[in-house]
Amino acid sequence: MLFDSHVHSEGLGITELRKMKESGIEKICSLSFYPVKPLFPQTLIDAFRKLEEFEKRRCKILGIEMLAGVGIHPRCIPPNYKAVIEHLEASDWDLFGEIGLENATNEEIEVLRDQLRIAKSKDVPCVIHTPRRNKGIVTKKILEVLESISFPAELAVVDHVNFENLDLVLEKDYWIGLTVQLGKLSAQEVANIVEKHGSERFIVNSDSGYGNEFVTAVAEVAKVVAEEAERICLKNAEKFLGV
Amino acid sequence: MLFDSHVHSEGLGITELRKMKESGIEKICSLSFYPVKPLFPQTLIDAFRKLEEFEKRRCKILGIEMLAGVGIHPRCIPPNYKAVIEHLEASDWDLFGEIGLENATNEEIEVLRDQLRIAKSKDVPCVIHTPRRNKGIVTKKILEVLESISFPAELAVVDHVNFENLDLVLEKDYWIGLTVQLGKLSAQEVANIVEKHGSERFIVNSDSGYGNEFVTAVAEVAKVVAEEAERICLKNAEKFLGV
Repeated sequence: MLFDSHVHSEGLGITELRKMKESGIEKICSLSFYPVKPLFPQTLIDAFRKLEEFEKRRCKILGIEMLAGVGIHPRCIPPNYKAVIEHLEASDWDLFGEIGLENATNEEIEVLRDQLRIAKSKDVPCVIHTPRRNKGIVTKKILEVLESISFPAELAVVDHVNFENLDLVLEKDYWIGLTVQLGKLSAQEVANIVEKHGSERFIVNSDSGYGNEFVTAVAEVAKVVAEEAERICLKNAEKFLGV
Repeated sequence: MLFDSHVHSEGLGITELRKMKESGIEKICSLSFYPVKPLFPQTLIDAFRKLEEFEKRRCKILGIEMLAGVGIHPRCIPPNYKAVIEHLEASDWDLFGEIGLENATNEEIEVLRDQLRIAKSKDVPCVIHTPRRNKGIVTKKILEVLESISFPAELAVVDHVNFENLDLVLEKDYWIGLTVQLGKLSAQEVANIVEKHGSERFIVNSDSGYGNEFVTAVAEVAKVVAEEAERICLKNAEKFLGV
């Protein structure tokens, strides 16, 4: 059994979810993302319900256990985003994600910090996006925000880590997300990283959905890494999520 | 070239859209539907933008020309739905859909009538949903609403017509939508209907998306009907849409 800890199932069709299942992936985290910048905070509040109710059911029918990640993605900050923050504060959640920074603007930092504070107080694990551009600089900023509120290391995965920010993240104690897709890492690169640095802190994912149909990424990694597969393609994700 | 006039592309993955294209379907209408009942009108207003911006672009990349249908589906009526009606009133649109009735409650009828009034005043074609349950009774109600405001026949397709409501709709002058999917019509049944009643008013569609992955439905019909294919799988849809 394999676990893909970063998927956008809303951007996948039944055919693709079935292919994922057939490759051995039986558990996923489906994370919040809205493909246009929302004009209203309410849009995200309903989108969380869609994820937790409809998407979870759709995955279950196909034999995939899905955990929903809610929260404000840095590219999806609506006007009056505080209404979303209040909504997150008012309930219990399994997972926040994807949250993080894209351009590290003051607003993005404020939104990230607000969400991390709630996660810390409620003991909610967080999947934290690092961007394609200025990856090193923005990752540094994310680490600063995490440290500024003494965020518990075991509750955060710094995601989409590649050779540009790996050293930065290795110095800390957070989980490290390795995303296997075209333009990010290859399965072989993940194998190389794990061979060099051990499998203790790595969690593999596909980030599949919308434009990215590489749904078997975690299964491809499992084939290449063999021995460490159980840890980086299942156990570490379960540990991080507390499931 | 084929036209699928009723798709929910938001519920289809790239793999499925590509398969659709490969079967010869190069034009689609992607219609509004929200898989959980929204709690806020704003959710629909942003969802229309998602459809018109993101989904249109996603289809274009795959070689599919997409026309977005906006409006309030009878199963997705939010509280304060008048805010959506005002939004529809305030702009120009290519297409309303899917609108219609599910249980024919007073609220559903009011929402349908409001939208048809706007469509009539702005000359916007409308795809009108008929439900699975009580299909005859609810279709009668839909026809009453259309007639009560003298809705122009050429601007409405009464959709998901099957043997339960075909006679009712044949008596009027609206376009007739035939949806080919498991539990609705088969390609052969469409061929039989067209053989008996001529091809002038029929428009074939798949209603694919979310739970329904039968994306090649229109292509399957085109194979079976041969001669009438151009009309019911392309030309009638173009005429209805004014494209």
